[in-house]
Amino acid sequence: MSKSRLEARALDRYVKGLRPEFEKTLKHMVEIPSVSMDPKRKSAMKASAAHAVDLLKALGAKARIVKTPLYPLVVGKLIQDKSYPTVTIYNHLDVQPADGKKEGWKHEPFRFTKDGDRYLGRGTTDDKGPALTAYYGVRCALDNRIPLNFQFLWELEEEIGSPSFEGALRKHAASLKTDSVVVSDTIWISRTRPAISYALRGVQAALLRLETGVKDVHSGLTGGAARNAVAELMDLAARLVDARTGRVRIPGFYDDVTPPSRRELQSFRDSGFKTSVFRRAHELKSLRATDELEVMQRIWTRPTFEVHGIAGGYSGPGVKTVVPQSGELKVSMRLVPGQKPAKMFRALKQHVKKLNPDVKVISDSVLEPYMGDFSGPYADAARQAVQFGFHRTPAFVREGASIGAVVTMQKLLKAPITFLGLSLPEHGYHAPNEFYDWGQASGGVKMFTRYFEEISRLAR
Amino acid sequence: MSKSRLEARALDRYVKGLRPEFEKTLKHMVEIPSVSMDPKRKSAMKASAAHAVDLLKALGAKARIVKTPLYPLVVGKLIQDKSYPTVTIYNHLDVQPADGKKEGWKHEPFRFTKDGDRYLGRGTTDDKGPALTAYYGVRCALDNRIPLNFQFLWELEEEIGSPSFEGALRKHAASLKTDSVVVSDTIWISRTRPAISYALRGVQAALLRLETGVKDVHSGLTGGAARNAVAELMDLAARLVDARTGRVRIPGFYDDVTPPSRRELQSFRDSGFKTSVFRRAHELKSLRATDELEVMQRIWTRPTFEVHGIAGGYSGPGVKTVVPQSGELKVSMRLVPGQKPAKMFRALKQHVKKLNPDVKVISDSVLEPYMGDFSGPYADAARQAVQFGFHRTPAFVREGASIGAVVTMQKLLKAPITFLGLSLPEHGYHAPNEFYDWGQASGGVKMFTRYFEEISRLAR
Repeated sequence: MSKSRLEARALDRYVKGLRPEFEKTLKHMVEIPSVSMDPKRKSAMKASAAHAVDLLKALGAKARIVKTPLYPLVVGKLIQDKSYPTVTIYNHLDVQPADGKKEGWKHEPFRFTKDGDRYLGRGTTDDKGPALTAYYGVRCALDNRIPLNFQFLWELEEEIGSPSFEGALRKHAASLKTDSVVVSDTIWISRTRPAISYALRGVQAALLRLETGVKDVHSGLTGGAARNAVAELMDLAARLVDARTGRVRIPGFYDDVTPPSRRELQSFRDSGFKTSVFRRAHELKSLRATDELEVMQRIWTRPTFEVHGIAGGYSGPGVKTVVPQSGELKVSMRLVPGQKPAKMFRALKQHVKKLNPDVKVISDSVLEPYMGDFSGPYADAARQAVQFGFHRTPAFVREGASIGAVVTMQKLLKAPITFLGLSLPEHGYHAPNEFYDWGQASGGVKMFTRYFEEISRLAR
Repeated sequence: MSKSRLEARALDRYVKGLRPEFEKTLKHMVEIPSVSMDPKRKSAMKASAAHAVDLLKALGAKARIVKTPLYPLVVGKLIQDKSYPTVTIYNHLDVQPADGKKEGWKHEPFRFTKDGDRYLGRGTTDDKGPALTAYYGVRCALDNRIPLNFQFLWELEEEIGSPSFEGALRKHAASLKTDSVVVSDTIWISRTRPAISYALRGVQAALLRLETGVKDVHSGLTGGAARNAVAELMDLAARLVDARTGRVRIPGFYDDVTPPSRRELQSFRDSGFKTSVFRRAHELKSLRATDELEVMQRIWTRPTFEVHGIAGGYSGPGVKTVVPQSGELKVSMRLVPGQKPAKMFRALKQHVKKLNPDVKVISDSVLEPYMGDFSGPYADAARQAVQFGFHRTPAFVREGASIGAVVTMQKLLKAPITFLGLSLPEHGYHAPNEFYDWGQASGGVKMFTRYFEEISRLAR
């Protein structure tokens, strides 16, 4: 590891000077409600892509909108010198839905609210804030004459499982060659414990539909003889997973799961993960397990079967005594490296057929799990960068969430992928009152700058 | 049974002449959206009571609004001669909620739509149409000089379990003395098979609430370690009732159930009930049983535990991969004569405590089951009346639904109660596209007139 030419105090001043512009830009981004899941947000999705292009152009990049069947991919290229290596920076600009009243937001989710160092609003931490932090890291790298070319891949479909990403990347792969990829969409152990992920869980989501009649019927007039579609789906859920322990009851479900290696477990133990911190960060009253290593394995290295909710029947205030005649159970399996979503979907389908043959099983979003490495020059560069930006040593851990684009980039760009996430557990990924903060942003700009300096020295 | 002085053809002409006014009045009633369950409908509830008073006054009755803690009771008195016996006519003017778009109504639920002989709209058959039919039956009886006094009890809280009815009746019992009661809020076996009920099931509804955290969390970040409140409630539902067979798994649940007598079973067998007709009327694809007598017992003489739906988690389009941290399961038990709602609620609560101690059990609406008789002079009068109005012999059966007011009237008015229902299974009680029809209305006016004639001859 060669010595950095970056001067810490000068960089601090530089980053401090960025703050007003950072906040103004993040405000603009957050107030574009780019909810990819909501078909009514199409114009916001368009505005988000257009703003992204403007941003990239302001940096001096050549920016373009790559059209896809649904929402575009924004590509930016900033070639300083063709002899320099190229890093590709992946972020996403689409966000989760947010219902201010229903979900108990304290501020309007799509109004940027500044509270001291905290930036509140949907998408602040997932993933607009980290995207913008990486963006200013690039500007800082340019201003510090770091010999690297930059390529931005800003996705607008991450929250809906990246349906167009692979197609777009496959079509434009020749023009997207890169020496490495950096992804900033993961979460630290805690504010005092940065984490670098090297593996992601995948997802296979599904809808389980049952219709036993045409319309909901009266429980007095028909109750006892009429089937109850919602009760049958609940019964099915109870047979697919033990709700108390989380143990999945689908035959073969655990067949392809490889337990974490001894070296991984040691890295987990050293990570500083605290069950109590995790519980508080997510505001959970109790957990299925308390032992630290057990909890880490549950969220990082083991697959799950989760029930997200059910459509059908009555869910308003009080009780309406209908016998529901249709229902749609919303479920998903988080899958770990080794498991194949298609195989797990088949296993689910077969088991459901056995348990309740009238239930239709429909595949929803699918993301492959991802397994990378946590050693080598890029991991070393990441370690240096985090140390420089935050004065702390990062833990190398797995990540329980899924980023579909990562597996696609691994497959098509064939370059090492590094995760330099900036979100904290309490920031509230996908949750109400999501926020990001200047501490993570300012440290993050420094981290990225140093990371770019480090990897600019790696042989192409 | 003495001979009727009513002349069938003259009555036919009379009833035919009523039709324009009947339709106009029913239209007015249906277009007042008197949804007692919906706190936003308070002004409609008020309008419904005011219109009821006007209607009763138009008949020559003394009408008044009896105030209660929630929605009033409308009382009408039409004393022709103090020496005549008095019949009390019970109906309710409040209706079930209706969501035109969500529930797939073909017409606006609160717009009266006439389609040939069919009258479409929420409340047409439950219970505004039958209420109006009984009302015109009284007018016809008056015009035919039938020596009877009439007392109307029009309730506005039936669909929410009659919370104020008992209090109001108890307070005004002295002024509400009656020789008999007739209730028109039950359903025939089929269009060609009138039915007179002599028993009702009761209801004990409940909310089962669970909170395992403050807000829904991310299934990638927390899934495996976080508890899933919705999955746990579904598991609980599956442990409380066998969704496929309907068998209730609460200890002691069936202890106080008395099987129907041999005489009752014979009456059921003679009722002309057809499983296929029942299935088609409610548009059910399949049933838990096919044998006719078994189906009748399931809906009339056996208790149930029904899951109506769940609030919590994600129920929008597609899949949102949250781990729900709170949920409210909506359930109810239909109870049969012999079972006590309070005892069954305690049994439920105790069992839930054992299965999942974190779940809170909250009692919702409660209605006692009702058991009457199906022989004697009032039953004979009813048989005569149905024969006269519809040229068919009625079946004496039980009713699976609940009318809270009936048990209260039995207890406080201490007079025989007769059920002269007019609704058909296909009319869609509580269902989308509810309707009533002129065939039932016109036959019904004649039926009521004849019934009033018959009971006017019974000794006081």
